[in-house]
Amino acid sequence: MERLLRDGHEVLVLDDLSTGDLRFLASDIRERIELFEEDLSSVDVTFLTKILKGTDTLFHLAANADVRGGWNSTFRDIQHNVIATHNVALACREAGVKHIVFSSTGCVYGDSTVIPTPETEPFPIQTSLYGTSKVAAEGILSSFSAHGVFNVTVLRFVSVLGRYYHHGHVIDFVRQLMAHPRKLNILGDGNQRKSYISVKDCVEALVSLRGENHFEVFNIGNPDYCEVKASASLISQAMNLSPEFSFGTESRGWVGDNPYTFLDVQKAFAHGWKSTISIQDCILETVNWIRENPWVLSLDSDRHRG
Amino acid sequence: MERLLRDGHEVLVLDDLSTGDLRFLASDIRERIELFEEDLSSVDVTFLTKILKGTDTLFHLAANADVRGGWNSTFRDIQHNVIATHNVALACREAGVKHIVFSSTGCVYGDSTVIPTPETEPFPIQTSLYGTSKVAAEGILSSFSAHGVFNVTVLRFVSVLGRYYHHGHVIDFVRQLMAHPRKLNILGDGNQRKSYISVKDCVEALVSLRGENHFEVFNIGNPDYCEVKASASLISQAMNLSPEFSFGTESRGWVGDNPYTFLDVQKAFAHGWKSTISIQDCILETVNWIRENPWVLSLDSDRHRG
Repeated sequence: MERLLRDGHEVLVLDDLSTGDLRFLASDIRERIELFEEDLSSVDVTFLTKILKGTDTLFHLAANADVRGGWNSTFRDIQHNVIATHNVALACREAGVKHIVFSSTGCVYGDSTVIPTPETEPFPIQTSLYGTSKVAAEGILSSFSAHGVFNVTVLRFVSVLGRYYHHGHVIDFVRQLMAHPRKLNILGDGNQRKSYISVKDCVEALVSLRGENHFEVFNIGNPDYCEVKASASLISQAMNLSPEFSFGTESRGWVGDNPYTFLDVQKAFAHGWKSTISIQDCILETVNWIRENPWVLSLDSDRHRG
Repeated sequence: MERLLRDGHEVLVLDDLSTGDLRFLASDIRERIELFEEDLSSVDVTFLTKILKGTDTLFHLAANADVRGGWNSTFRDIQHNVIATHNVALACREAGVKHIVFSSTGCVYGDSTVIPTPETEPFPIQTSLYGTSKVAAEGILSSFSAHGVFNVTVLRFVSVLGRYYHHGHVIDFVRQLMAHPRKLNILGDGNQRKSYISVKDCVEALVSLRGENHFEVFNIGNPDYCEVKASASLISQAMNLSPEFSFGTESRGWVGDNPYTFLDVQKAFAHGWKSTISIQDCILETVNWIRENPWVLSLDSDRHRG
């Protein structure tokens, strides 16, 4: 929203603050936006329609993003990613919103057979309820766009790092090392290969990337990947520590995790977007940001997910 | 269920009878099955778990199958295909069901770019909430199977014809011709190419097709397609009529319809299943069955959907 305000737009925000936190909003930003504390999975669609009247573009970022937790609470992804997206689509139809930019995920590719994975990879087999729910949300939006209701841009992100980050393997490693500087437990065998992107590059993609068709999908990530054990070394170095690593035995961090996530981002590049911050710099920036904002360590105590 | 009884199995049926009808059950069949009238989207999962204890294989055929109607009642597919499938998966997990056979649809391929369409076609863009909901249901089941909960066989059917059929273009054409024998209105320009399969061949696929992996997908259809206008001619001939056809102007029958549906069924063939009844014979059998059971004409008055 900082970027949208800087570009001269009026910004209205809906958030249930379940994973967000008002401390992420600088006071000068907070004063310039209209904020509604709402859960989109149970919001009154008539109310939502009313406040969306006159909106040009809606960025639909609200979601449950806890992939691993889906197995403990199997309805959560359906509720917050499928039902919530249906409510958003209905209200946008009624309010005449012209464009929806939707944050999807590389998880939709399941255990892809083509790496780096393009947007057109073979029909994926889902391994998580999170990926399933994002595929469903994309489908709801594309069905509405097929009816000419609004245009849709879907961005399938790899894991996002950087400012305001508070959920995933980097914070888990930092948290462990602050508690026990000499050892680090790593889920899986450490050979998992994952791609990451900086939140700065994400924002640029959200604001600038648009395609030619009424429904357009772009992969967003660095054109690169990093092994989890290399990330663990980098984080340890940044904290001036040399812990002993202990690994799991499985190739996956947990059941349903995808051990090799690396997206083909040529389509986004061809449309003028570029990633500008390498995976290594993303990780280092994130470690520094967490250490400068140690209060985020208490926001989420789950173990790392990628 | 006739086939399962004949094979010596005990059969338990759950149906909300929203599109089914007890008149489809011969009395000797009715006496040999246990029937629960339940809506799976709102069923008590504890109750469902209880009655599923001891079940080896569950055939999950319950669904909203009215593709076109999804646009008038946008939550219906989520409710009856996504939420219901989640309830089924949960109960099967708790009850220890070993195998789920799920009836999916060729609609999951949207407007496919590869025809005939194989199971591995490029990541599809959904054009209907029905297709979206079936992709989501497949994903829920594959996520559960990734956790080793049960094995899953997904059958993606083309449109099904034959005995007990009461919803689609054949019954619409028959209904129109019985009311006005000299004219027939056809949605779309008549050039839509669709594939069909007999319910007999479907039952054989449901009962016999199993793959090597914990989650396996098979396309099920005739290795052939038929233009809607050719089907109209065949139905008219079967009724000894020569009506004037009037066509729409669009290539699609309705928004979200896929004008060319033709699945590659080589995988199912390689696993020992074969279609045995041609599309033309399917259509003729269906016309005859409707004429012998005219009461089905009042079951569903919607216009044809493919």
